[in-house]
Amino acid sequence: MSRPLILVSNDDGITSRGILTLVEAMMELGDVIVVAPDSPQSGMGHAITVGEPLRLEESFLFKGARAFECSGTPADCVKIARHFVLKGERQPDVVVSGINHGSNTSISVLYSGTMSAAIEAAIEGTPAIGFSLCDYSHKADFSHAKEIVKKVTSQVLAKGLPKGVALNVNIPKKQAEPMKGIRVCRQANAKWVEDFDQRFDPNGRRYFWMVGNFVNFDKGEDNDEWAIANNYVSVVPCQFDLTAHQTLPILNEAWDILD
Amino acid sequence: MSRPLILVSNDDGITSRGILTLVEAMMELGDVIVVAPDSPQSGMGHAITVGEPLRLEESFLFKGARAFECSGTPADCVKIARHFVLKGERQPDVVVSGINHGSNTSISVLYSGTMSAAIEAAIEGTPAIGFSLCDYSHKADFSHAKEIVKKVTSQVLAKGLPKGVALNVNIPKKQAEPMKGIRVCRQANAKWVEDFDQRFDPNGRRYFWMVGNFVNFDKGEDNDEWAIANNYVSVVPCQFDLTAHQTLPILNEAWDILD
Repeated sequence: MSRPLILVSNDDGITSRGILTLVEAMMELGDVIVVAPDSPQSGMGHAITVGEPLRLEESFLFKGARAFECSGTPADCVKIARHFVLKGERQPDVVVSGINHGSNTSISVLYSGTMSAAIEAAIEGTPAIGFSLCDYSHKADFSHAKEIVKKVTSQVLAKGLPKGVALNVNIPKKQAEPMKGIRVCRQANAKWVEDFDQRFDPNGRRYFWMVGNFVNFDKGEDNDEWAIANNYVSVVPCQFDLTAHQTLPILNEAWDILD
Repeated sequence: MSRPLILVSNDDGITSRGILTLVEAMMELGDVIVVAPDSPQSGMGHAITVGEPLRLEESFLFKGARAFECSGTPADCVKIARHFVLKGERQPDVVVSGINHGSNTSISVLYSGTMSAAIEAAIEGTPAIGFSLCDYSHKADFSHAKEIVKKVTSQVLAKGLPKGVALNVNIPKKQAEPMKGIRVCRQANAKWVEDFDQRFDPNGRRYFWMVGNFVNFDKGEDNDEWAIANNYVSVVPCQFDLTAHQTLPILNEAWDILD
């Protein structure tokens, strides 16, 4: 049996520690190709580059893996990987993104460039996983994440994923106690509430730093916030059909402007 | 009864024709405040500005409405409107975004800056609507959209929306025949397939224009693509819980790495 082909991307950029850990782990599972942003793209959500051209350059950062750095967003990277770099070639068996430096649990999935690469791959019909490490420290330790990304990716390669589903995998910060295990979860009901720290530049013009404060409303134990808080790896299957299907009959019933 | 407070944003930027049409329409329904990007933000998805500060300046573009232009994304605009501009003041009764110059049907909802402003408001618990005109022409006629945005916004003000739901409203291109009406729809099953047009700059370095080709797989008549193709306004209720709930038991059953 031939080795699987694994496409790796991320949003922290091709020089980040997280993608190095991910590439090293994936090279133990299959043939690896990397197409990742040439600069950090955190918080890019599902942005794509419209109205300006893209650059793509070969990279020699990873021994044993073809690699390219792209001036675009994570979603652009997956698109150019499939439709230019691998055009006419074998397509990836799985797309992995990350390992993000920081959490992408609950509502952060919407703002996450890491997950946008995975969701873009799911739109294309390829099983895909975004990995994030819930540690914002500059010195974050990625070592314990390596076994997890191998375990989860192997499982996806062996068993596939339902069509249109990408996994959002969050890994707890390294702690003295070993991790308790892996849990399939739903997205927690939580949000960011922002403060704006107003300052003045040397010319007296004001500017603002956006400061996010995370607020968790969820009391359940079946969600990703609970899992991470309890030292479990969380696996949330995500879809790109945003339709609130349960709302369709409600609007059809209540509205008097429909035809 | 006091007039409702309506927050207006968009992704084409504060000087675009679409937001002018939307502001004019909203001033007939209530008090209007505008916080919109100072430059075009198309394709920004649910991006937020991380790692750099934001600018915010008062704008005198709209007679009779307080207005601000912001250097950030559409999601940033909604955040700074609520948590800085309107801090300690009355919060908006509805947030409207657009009118986007171009379609945001089906999968485009994910890439849409217009919808990210609406979804951001829904996360904050405010009823919200993104409006888009399905006409990419430089000379697009927004005139027929004005009645639609008033009709839909009035309905939302009168009847509310379920919590966590934002509406994705697409309006057909102006045609000789009048529009047939308004339909509540699901997001169509369609995607963009990209080509990359490779060129070389004057220094011989290559660059790429991403060219998207829209492919519709959906044969149903209850989706937004069908509605627009048949000269109906489409209204898709959207949610920000991306969990593929139906996949939770499938993974719990199939996977052997769970605890």
